[in-house]
Amino acid sequence: MAKDNLTAVLHGIEDLRLEQVPIPEIADNEVLLAMDSVGICGSDVHYLAHGRIGDFVLTKPMIIGHESAGVVAKLGKKVTTLKVGDRVAIEPGVPCRTCDQCKLGKYNLCPGMVFCATPPYDGNLTRYYKHAADFCFKLPDHVTMEEGALLEPLSVGVHACKRAEVTLGSKVLILGAGPIGLVTLMAAQAMGASEILITDLVQQRLDVAKELGATHTLLLKREQTAEETAVLVQKTMGCQPDKSIDCCGAESSARLAIFATRSGGIVVVVGMGAAEVKLPLINALAREVDIRGVFRYCNDYAAALAFVASGKVNVKRLVTHHFDIKDTAKAFETSRKGLGGAIKVMIHVQPRDTNNPRKF
Amino acid sequence: MAKDNLTAVLHGIEDLRLEQVPIPEIADNEVLLAMDSVGICGSDVHYLAHGRIGDFVLTKPMIIGHESAGVVAKLGKKVTTLKVGDRVAIEPGVPCRTCDQCKLGKYNLCPGMVFCATPPYDGNLTRYYKHAADFCFKLPDHVTMEEGALLEPLSVGVHACKRAEVTLGSKVLILGAGPIGLVTLMAAQAMGASEILITDLVQQRLDVAKELGATHTLLLKREQTAEETAVLVQKTMGCQPDKSIDCCGAESSARLAIFATRSGGIVVVVGMGAAEVKLPLINALAREVDIRGVFRYCNDYAAALAFVASGKVNVKRLVTHHFDIKDTAKAFETSRKGLGGAIKVMIHVQPRDTNNPRKF
Amino acid sequence: MAKDNLTAVLHGIEDLRLEQVPIPEIADNEVLLAMDSVGICGSDVHYLAHGRIGDFVLTKPMIIGHESAGVVAKLGKKVTTLKVGDRVAIEPGVPCRTCDQCKLGKYNLCPGMVFCATPPYDGNLTRYYKHAADFCFKLPDHVTMEEGALLEPLSVGVHACKRAEVTLGSKVLILGAGPIGLVTLMAAQAMGASEILITDLVQQRLDVAKELGATHTLLLKREQTAEETAVLVQKTMGCQPDKSIDCCGAESSARLAIFATRSGGIVVVVGMGAAEVKLPLINALAREVDIRGVFRYCNDYAAALAFVASGKVNVKRLVTHHFDIKDTAKAFETSRKGLGGAIKVMIHVQPRDTNNPRKF
Amino acid sequence: MAKDNLTAVLHGIEDLRLEQVPIPEIADNEVLLAMDSVGICGSDVHYLAHGRIGDFVLTKPMIIGHESAGVVAKLGKKVTTLKVGDRVAIEPGVPCRTCDQCKLGKYNLCPGMVFCATPPYDGNLTRYYKHAADFCFKLPDHVTMEEGALLEPLSVGVHACKRAEVTLGSKVLILGAGPIGLVTLMAAQAMGASEILITDLVQQRLDVAKELGATHTLLLKREQTAEETAVLVQKTMGCQPDKSIDCCGAESSARLAIFATRSGGIVVVVGMGAAEVKLPLINALAREVDIRGVFRYCNDYAAALAFVASGKVNVKRLVTHHFDIKDTAKAFETSRKGLGGAIKVMIHVQPRDTNNPRKF
Repeated sequence: MAKDNLTAVLHGIEDLRLEQVPIPEIADNEVLLAMDSVGICGSDVHYLAHGRIGDFVLTKPMIIGHESAGVVAKLGKKVTTLKVGDRVAIEPGVPCRTCDQCKLGKYNLCPGMVFCATPPYDGNLTRYYKHAADFCFKLPDHVTMEEGALLEPLSVGVHACKRAEVTLGSKVLILGAGPIGLVTLMAAQAMGASEILITDLVQQRLDVAKELGATHTLLLKREQTAEETAVLVQKTMGCQPDKSIDCCGAESSARLAIFATRSGGIVVVVGMGAAEVKLPLINALAREVDIRGVFRYCNDYAAALAFVASGKVNVKRLVTHHFDIKDTAKAFETSRKGLGGAIKVMIHVQPRDTNNPRKF
Repeated sequence: MAKDNLTAVLHGIEDLRLEQVPIPEIADNEVLLAMDSVGICGSDVHYLAHGRIGDFVLTKPMIIGHESAGVVAKLGKKVTTLKVGDRVAIEPGVPCRTCDQCKLGKYNLCPGMVFCATPPYDGNLTRYYKHAADFCFKLPDHVTMEEGALLEPLSVGVHACKRAEVTLGSKVLILGAGPIGLVTLMAAQAMGASEILITDLVQQRLDVAKELGATHTLLLKREQTAEETAVLVQKTMGCQPDKSIDCCGAESSARLAIFATRSGGIVVVVGMGAAEVKLPLINALAREVDIRGVFRYCNDYAAALAFVASGKVNVKRLVTHHFDIKDTAKAFETSRKGLGGAIKVMIHVQPRDTNNPRKF
Repeated sequence: MAKDNLTAVLHGIEDLRLEQVPIPEIADNEVLLAMDSVGICGSDVHYLAHGRIGDFVLTKPMIIGHESAGVVAKLGKKVTTLKVGDRVAIEPGVPCRTCDQCKLGKYNLCPGMVFCATPPYDGNLTRYYKHAADFCFKLPDHVTMEEGALLEPLSVGVHACKRAEVTLGSKVLILGAGPIGLVTLMAAQAMGASEILITDLVQQRLDVAKELGATHTLLLKREQTAEETAVLVQKTMGCQPDKSIDCCGAESSARLAIFATRSGGIVVVVGMGAAEVKLPLINALAREVDIRGVFRYCNDYAAALAFVASGKVNVKRLVTHHFDIKDTAKAFETSRKGLGGAIKVMIHVQPRDTNNPRKF
Repeated sequence: MAKDNLTAVLHGIEDLRLEQVPIPEIADNEVLLAMDSVGICGSDVHYLAHGRIGDFVLTKPMIIGHESAGVVAKLGKKVTTLKVGDRVAIEPGVPCRTCDQCKLGKYNLCPGMVFCATPPYDGNLTRYYKHAADFCFKLPDHVTMEEGALLEPLSVGVHACKRAEVTLGSKVLILGAGPIGLVTLMAAQAMGASEILITDLVQQRLDVAKELGATHTLLLKREQTAEETAVLVQKTMGCQPDKSIDCCGAESSARLAIFATRSGGIVVVVGMGAAEVKLPLINALAREVDIRGVFRYCNDYAAALAFVASGKVNVKRLVTHHFDIKDTAKAFETSRKGLGGAIKVMIHVQPRDTNNPRKF
C-alpha cells in the first residue's frame, strides 16, 4: 500500500495545513478507505474561521472534512458486508451503540458519538481513513463518488423533512436557498410536497431553487417584519404552509417560520444561529405549531442513497466547483466567500472520475 | 333550470335502468351539482351482479355511481366556499360529524356515514345531484373533470400508502395491477418509494404498471405457494419490502404479503375478499409485521388533488374507455368483462370536455 | 319551566353583574341545561381584570364561566343520546365540524370554534344554558356535579400529558403547582409517569402537590438562573426529565424547561405569558428537544371522566372554596387574590349536592 | 472465587440435568454475575417438552433460564456503569448493535440477537453467568431479586401495552389470565386504562385478575363462538374495547379479539399458537382494526423497573412457588402442571433473601 497519506489538518484558527499523517490501523469491525471525494461544509469553514462551534472547541490539531466517499482498501477481520474495491459513501458519525439514545433509535443524540471533524475527532479529508463498516454505504455503479459525498448534506435535508413529517400534499415553506435549503427542497419534493415556497435574500439562489423545482420563490427584504413576510408567504402560496423548515438559523427566520405556519403545523429549524433568540412563542403555542430541531441525521443515509440512485434528483447541480486536495486552501476560500456563485465545493483526493464507472 | 334528470338507478340484481328522477332540493350547507363525469368502480359492478357487498344489501332502488365530478349549479344559503360554475370533485361520503370517530379525525369509520351508492344511499350517476359543500373540492382550470372523478380511486391509493407509512426510501410491494393497484403505485411513487415491485397474474397489466413507473414487475403463477413467491419477490427487489400493499383481496395475496414483508414492516390490505381466510399469523406476529386494513379514505382528497394538479402523475392513463350516460349499460359491460383491456371506464353525463378548459 | 335565569354577565373591565337574561331556545341537536356547578378559571379572572386575552377582546356584554356541569332540562328534537334529568359535564367549545382542522381530529384548532366565555361567545355561569348534545358527557351516579365541572381543567392536564407523550416510566418535570400544574400532575401519574418533580415559588403549593403524589418538589428562587435550576432538577430527580410541562407561562419557566429536558425529550408549554420571549432555542434544537403548545383540549373529556370515575384521582382536593351564584363577586375575589389558600373556587348555581346522589 | 457452578442444562426432550460447567470468561463490556433468582417461563417448559419452539431447535445441550436477576461479581475492563456487588435485573437478549433494526430502535427484531435459552444460546439458570453490562439494570435497595427476575415477563406486558397504545381512558380487553395476561393487566392499569376486562376458561385465574385490579372478568365457555363472546364482552364492559390484547395464542382467541374491538382500534397478539389460523380478516380490515404482534420487548426494562420500584404494582403476587436450584426438576414439574395453582415458579440459585435488603 502507498505510504502517501496527504491530509488536511486544522491546527487552529486560520491554520489549515496539508501534511502527511500515518495511515490508520483498523479494528475488526472497520474498513480502511482510500478517500475519493470530500465536500466542504459550512461547519468546516466555521472551524477554520472560529476554531469552534458552540461547545465543540478545537484544542488540538484535527483532520478536517466529513462529506465524503471512498473506496474500500482493506477489511477488518469481522467485516462481511463489504469487499475490497467497493465504492462507498461514508456516514461520518459512529455512535456508542450502548446508551439509551442508541437503543431507542436516536443514535444522532448519542452523547458518545464520534463524528468526523468535530473536536476532538478527526475527519477524512485525507488519502487513507478508517471507518466502521456498518456506516459505509455501497454505491451502485451508476452513482458517482461525488454523489456519494453529497449524501451527507442530502441526509440533513431528508432528516429535516422527516422531522417535519412532509408527506403527499404537504405545503412546505423553506427558508434559505443555500446548500441545506436546496437539499431540503429536493427531499420535500421527493416526499410528495405539492407546494414548496423557498425564500432567500439573494435572487440568484432563488433562481437555482426554481430550476430545481421550487413551485414558488420569494425574495426577502431585510426591512420587512416577520409578520409582514408571513402575509406575503400566504399570498404567494395561496395558503399557509403546514410545514416550515428554517435552513438559515437567523432569529428573523425562526420568527417568520412561526408566524407563517398554519395552526397544527410544524416548524423545523435546521440552521443554528445565536444562542438566544427572541420568539413569538405564544403565537406558536396557542396554535399548536410545534417547534423541532434537527441534529444531523439518523437512519437517513439509505433513503438518501436510494433517492439519488433513482435518478429522480439532480444532486449534481449543487456542485459548482472542483479542486484537488493539493488545492485545499483555494477550495476553502471559494466556499467561504461564495466565489463564482459557489454552492457546493468538492475536493478530490484522487483524480476526478478515477472511481466512477459513469462520469460525474 | 332544466327538467331533464336522467339517472342510472339500480333496481335489483342485473336490473340497472336509466330513468328520470326529481331534481333534489338542497339544504343550507349543500350545493346542487350538474354532474359531468362518473367512473365505474368494481363495487358498482358488484352491486349490479350481486345486489350486495357484505352487510350492505340493496333493498330498494338506488342511484349508482360515486367516482365523480360536477359543476356547481346552485348554492345552499350558508355556502360561502364555492360559487355557481365551480368545477368540483366530489368526495362521496358525508359523515355524521358528531360521533367519536368523526371527532378523532377518522370520519371514514363513522357509523352514520352517508356514502354514495352504498345502500340505502343514492349515488350520483345522474344529471343533478346534491352534496355537502365541504366535501366538494374545487378543481383548478388545468385539471379535467375526468381527473376530478379519478380522485376517488386515487384517494384510496393515497390512504393505503399513508396507512403503510410509505416515505422516502420505502421498498414497496404492491399485489395486483388493477385500477387500485395502479393508483397505489402512483401514490407510492409520489411519496418517495425507491423500489416498487408490482405483481399480477396478467402480463398486460404488468406492462401498464411498468409504463407507469413500477421499478419491478413479477408475473405470478397460480401453482406457486406464497412462501415460494415471497422468495422470488426478495430476489427480484434485491431486498425484502418494508411495506406490502395487497390490492387483490385474495387469501393467497394476503399470505404472500405477510411472508414477503421484512420484520418490523407493514402489510396493508386494501382489497377485500372472503369473510374468512387462513393466514400464517404467527409469521407476522413474531416478526412484528403489522396488518392494517383500508376503508375508503379520510382527509386524502386534497392531497390527491394537489398531486394530480402538480402534473407529476399520469392519472389519465387509467381511463381506457368513455361512454355517454345513455350508454351506461354498455359502459358497465365493458368494465365488468374488462373488454378491450379496460382499466377505468368513464361515463359522461355531459358531452366530453364541455367543462374542461384544457381537453382531457 | 322557571322564569328565573340569574346570570353572571361581564359588561367590561371590573364590571361583572348578576342579572336576568332570557332562557335560550334550543336547536334540534342541542339540550337545555339547568346549570349546577361552575368553577372559576384564571381566564375568567383575566377577562374581569383586563377585558381581553390576546386577540380575544370583550366588545359587548358576555356571560362568564366555562368549567361547568348541569342537568338536562329539555331535549332538541334530534337528540337521542341524552334524556331529561341526565347529569352532564359540559365540554365548553363547539367547533364548526366542517373545516380541515375538524376533519383532521384537531377540533380545538378550528377557526370557527364557539367557546364559552371567550368573546364574543357567552359562557354558562347562569341558571339555564343550551349546548350541543354531543359535547355533554353523562356523569355516572357516583361522580358529583363539582367533579363534572372539574373535568374542564383536568382535560387541559390530560391534553398536556398527551402532547408530551407521557407514558409508563416517563420522568416528568412540571413547572408550577397552581390548578393546571396540579391537574397535569394527576394526569401524568395516571398515565404511568414514574418520577414527577413539580416546582413552584410557594412552598404551600408544593405541599399540596406532594400530598397529591408528586415524587419530588423543588422550591424555586427568583434569583436562580434557568441553567442553575436545571442542574438542581437533575440532581433532585437523579436524572433529566424526558418530559417537561410548563404550567406557568413565564419566560423563565420556558427557559428552565428547555435546559432541564434530556436530549430527544419534549417540552410542553401550557401556560401562556408574554407575546415575546427570549429562548435558548439552539439548546433545544441541537438536542432535538421538541417544543409544543397546548390549546385547550381535544377528545380528552371522555378520558378525564373515566379517570375521575375510576376513583384513582382525588380531584376534589382541588376545590378549596364554595359560593352560591349570588355571591359570585366574592367568589371571584377569592379566586383572584388566592384568599385562604384558594386553589379552585366553585360556584353553585343550585344548592350544594342538589343533584349529587353521592355528596361531594 | 468459588469453583461451584451448578447449572441446569437441557440436553434434549425431557432431559434437563443439573451439572457443573466452567465459570465463563468475560469480555471488556461484560460483567460476571452471581445469579440469584430465575423464574420459569412457559417457553422454558416448552423446550423441555418439545425441544423446539418454531424454528428454534435444540441441537446441542443448552443452559435453561432467562427470567433472572443476579449480583455483579466481576467487571469487564470497560464497564463503568456498574460495580461489584450491584444487584441487577438481566434483560436476557443482546442484539448485534449494527444492523438496520438495531439502528432503528427495534433491537428485538435484530436477526443477530443472542437471547438466553433460545437455541443455540445458553440461558442463566446457573451460579455464574456473564452478560453485557448495558443490559443489566441496577435494582434499588427496596426492590427484591425476585422482582428483578419478574421484570422479564413484566416487560412483555409493557411492550404489549405500548404496541396497543394503551393510554389514559383506554378500554382494554385482555384474553387469558395466565402470567402474561396478568402482567399485561398490571401494565395496562399503570398506563391509564379505565376499563379492563380479562377473560379465561378458569374461574380461579379470573379471581386473581380481579384481585389485581381487573374491572371486569368474563369466564369463557368453549362452546361459544367468537361472535357470541364478542357480544358478551361489549355487554359486560358497557362499550367495545378499543384495545384487545390476546395473551393466549389460540385461534379462537385471536378471532374474539378481532370481533370484539371497536372500529379503528388495535388488536395485539402476544401469545403464539398454531402456524396457521383461520381469521375473519375482512371484519378487521373494513373497520381498520390493526393487528400487531409482540416479540419480546424493546426499551421496556427501565419502565418496568421504575413501575415496580414505585410500589404501585404488586408483582410479588405472581410468585406462587419457590424452589432451590437443586430442586429444578420439581420446579419445572410444578410450573408445567400448574400444581397448587402455580402462576409463577421462582428458582433460587442462592438461599432466599441472601441479596435482598428488604425481604421478598
